[in-house]
Amino acid sequence: MASEEKVTFNIDKNRDFGGWYNEIVAKAGLADLRYNVKGFVVFMPWSVASMKVMYDLWEKELEKRGHLPALFPALIPESNFLVEKEHVEGFAPEVFWVTERGGGEKLEERLGLRPTSETAMYKMYSMWIRSYNDLPLKIYQSCQVWRHETKATKPFIRSREFHWIEAHDVFACREDAEKQVLEDMEITRICLLEQLGVPFLFFERPQWDKFAGADKTFAADCLMPDGKVLQLPSTHVLGQNFAKAFEVKYVDKDGSEKYGWQTCYGPAISRIFAGVISIHGDSKGLVFPFNVAPKQVVVIPINFDINPEVKKKAEELEKKLSGRFRVVVDFSDKRPGEKYYYWEMKGVPIRLEIGPKDLEKKSVVLVRRDTGEKSFVKEKDLTESVEKLGRDLTESLKKKALKDFNAKVVEAKSMQEMEKALSEGKIVRVNFCSLELGAVKCAEEVEKKLGARVRGKRVDLEEKPSGSCLFCGRKAGVVAYIARQY
Amino acid sequence: MASEEKVTFNIDKNRDFGGWYNEIVAKAGLADLRYNVKGFVVFMPWSVASMKVMYDLWEKELEKRGHLPALFPALIPESNFLVEKEHVEGFAPEVFWVTERGGGEKLEERLGLRPTSETAMYKMYSMWIRSYNDLPLKIYQSCQVWRHETKATKPFIRSREFHWIEAHDVFACREDAEKQVLEDMEITRICLLEQLGVPFLFFERPQWDKFAGADKTFAADCLMPDGKVLQLPSTHVLGQNFAKAFEVKYVDKDGSEKYGWQTCYGPAISRIFAGVISIHGDSKGLVFPFNVAPKQVVVIPINFDINPEVKKKAEELEKKLSGRFRVVVDFSDKRPGEKYYYWEMKGVPIRLEIGPKDLEKKSVVLVRRDTGEKSFVKEKDLTESVEKLGRDLTESLKKKALKDFNAKVVEAKSMQEMEKALSEGKIVRVNFCSLELGAVKCAEEVEKKLGARVRGKRVDLEEKPSGSCLFCGRKAGVVAYIARQY
Repeated sequence: MASEEKVTFNIDKNRDFGGWYNEIVAKAGLADLRYNVKGFVVFMPWSVASMKVMYDLWEKELEKRGHLPALFPALIPESNFLVEKEHVEGFAPEVFWVTERGGGEKLEERLGLRPTSETAMYKMYSMWIRSYNDLPLKIYQSCQVWRHETKATKPFIRSREFHWIEAHDVFACREDAEKQVLEDMEITRICLLEQLGVPFLFFERPQWDKFAGADKTFAADCLMPDGKVLQLPSTHVLGQNFAKAFEVKYVDKDGSEKYGWQTCYGPAISRIFAGVISIHGDSKGLVFPFNVAPKQVVVIPINFDINPEVKKKAEELEKKLSGRFRVVVDFSDKRPGEKYYYWEMKGVPIRLEIGPKDLEKKSVVLVRRDTGEKSFVKEKDLTESVEKLGRDLTESLKKKALKDFNAKVVEAKSMQEMEKALSEGKIVRVNFCSLELGAVKCAEEVEKKLGARVRGKRVDLEEKPSGSCLFCGRKAGVVAYIARQY
Repeated sequence: MASEEKVTFNIDKNRDFGGWYNEIVAKAGLADLRYNVKGFVVFMPWSVASMKVMYDLWEKELEKRGHLPALFPALIPESNFLVEKEHVEGFAPEVFWVTERGGGEKLEERLGLRPTSETAMYKMYSMWIRSYNDLPLKIYQSCQVWRHETKATKPFIRSREFHWIEAHDVFACREDAEKQVLEDMEITRICLLEQLGVPFLFFERPQWDKFAGADKTFAADCLMPDGKVLQLPSTHVLGQNFAKAFEVKYVDKDGSEKYGWQTCYGPAISRIFAGVISIHGDSKGLVFPFNVAPKQVVVIPINFDINPEVKKKAEELEKKLSGRFRVVVDFSDKRPGEKYYYWEMKGVPIRLEIGPKDLEKKSVVLVRRDTGEKSFVKEKDLTESVEKLGRDLTESLKKKALKDFNAKVVEAKSMQEMEKALSEGKIVRVNFCSLELGAVKCAEEVEKKLGARVRGKRVDLEEKPSGSCLFCGRKAGVVAYIARQY
């Protein structure tokens, strides 16, 4: 495969992120863009192996908190789509429709490829839920969805087919639904920040930028190296909108019939992958956090061709480590230096070098991908050392990313400061009139004048506005954040 | 949910398999058939949790043997389908076609929902493979596929959407491709027989019953309680048919250009699930092999409502076991007897009972789902005892299933014996003229007269035919097997 070619990767992602991204997607074998349907890509082994681990991370956290896995059909009848008005308006333009089968036999009803599964799931929920005993109902599915995006596609970041998890929950009261949204944010923090080292801010989106059919939308924005934010998991208080449309009702303890309160949460694994590689990558290529690396350790035997003992030892070490880690050993006939470059570009967190001298000392050399730091480790301590080095590497990546991110969240008190901050690729804190629909004119000005968007207000802080809105001059009602976006 | 209702399941699957199957699918919460697209079902948590483990089993074995995971688009352009003639003839009648998007805008080309992925993958393979260094190429994807089946659908057994793994490999020569097929059979043996306890015979299918586009098809048939065989994983020698059609070529060591040799292997996880539950289930309901049970242990606390120590201990035991097993504790207010019935019906392999008397003795009671056997186990030995009991249970299920299966593979020397054996739900060994196309008339007679099909010849044995074909009287050229089928 193309990915096996000789590689010396050297692009500064902070100067030319577009170039870095396109090149690494090709060179590291992450996706192949030559598939002959526009907007669709082939996800290649080196990304899929990592995404599989990410799926596991999220699924475990969801299940720990009472979510059960299910699998709903990918095809949704058009009549289901038509049930909730706002939802259909939001998604209808993007739906791919199955209209015929076989030689051209028309179907009785158009079937939409799920762009998201509310309309498939909630019709079933209305049959499953009878009484308060059936609540809460917390179900997730890991699947792919299809949306005919009109914006330019970019592998992992935006494509017409992507891979995600969607969790759809029903509660007896509004309070429980709102608690669920906090739980979804906590899951996001644990997986995205703690395990993948990707910093983000959770914003409550303005009313004009909600999920179609939701009362409130909360979304995690991370910051890409080119200064644009990328929306990662979002979670939505659906209120009773869908419940009323789909008749999701239950009989309460007092015998009265009530509508359920719903939430949904959608971590898009393929997009999260984009965030992870973009934020941690460097000029040599990919840098994976230890836990989600497709291979965690690469064993490079030195002079194994003239020293069979080295070859034997390399195989032995691979076997030993494989019980606990994902390991690859490189016995190709490239020079060691070439192998170093290659596996650095692929982002393998730890390189293990073993040569004739090490044999005598019963030790090996471990090299960290992020810092290039070498350590000499006794063979008997190998497993623990790899474990620790992996943990340290992930922790370093997180700290570095957090430092970068925090430095890029700044305040603007004037339009000039705002323009400067945006041009420097920052997320800008600003006094703003409101996040209700009445402020949509100011939001349009933000888009037109600044090429940026109002991301909403922070969820983790209560911030008090002061002075007046930078755009309309009215009294500021909220502290909002503005950024350019994907 | 409906599954939480009071249940006393009592159906003899050997007398009324159809009734048993439909009832357990509903009662145990395996699938919901009320989804409003014909032939599509919702796979419910209790089956999905088990299928997820089955996916893991197969993926691990595939990866151990050098397969890499990838994800190809679900949509395949019509032009790709048209490339391989036999393939398109086989699959075209069943394809669901996407023809429009949004409000009704026609797509330039019809896009088929993948019924299987040869035509999506091999076009890419032709770009990826350049030289002998790129071979073998071994890639799998875990995904769902869609086929507009005209036969009656039945959840898990046959539906218009199902969940499977497909592995697609390319080799430099025919010998390597044929070795791969043996490897696929070995993976099947390890997963299906050793881990899931499902006995089967691998048959080479007759020429008239091959996968569309293959040179040879091998498929594992298991035997359902109603005496019909169910085809589980199949693996195919594709030869160079697709390679020639899709230009999957490589430059060999001597500089000459050659076509690749291909194989594909397709374990259908949702269908395998049907085999597992049907073969191990009993009149009380499901019986899961330990490793793939959605929950492996159910903790039933006795008199916990009047004795808080029991409640505490039950929670403690659940926590302790959860580190290693999938555990559920039942604190509902049903009587213990009702709980026993319910969790037996759900097929949980081990029931742990803990009551006031057990507290004093620092022991618990473990009950095996398959035999009902009780054992008293000291708390300190609990983890090991559960581990061992689980292993024993799986081993017993396998042995019992093998004994049943072997007793149902019989020989017929006359048409009378054949009819009798088929009516008793057996797989029948018979002298047969041939498995080449010339014998298709005999095969038709088998179908018309006996309502059965020629499954092919065994792969695990070389069997010498004798005498003449039971159907046409010509000299027998092969020992074939005949059975009724799903």
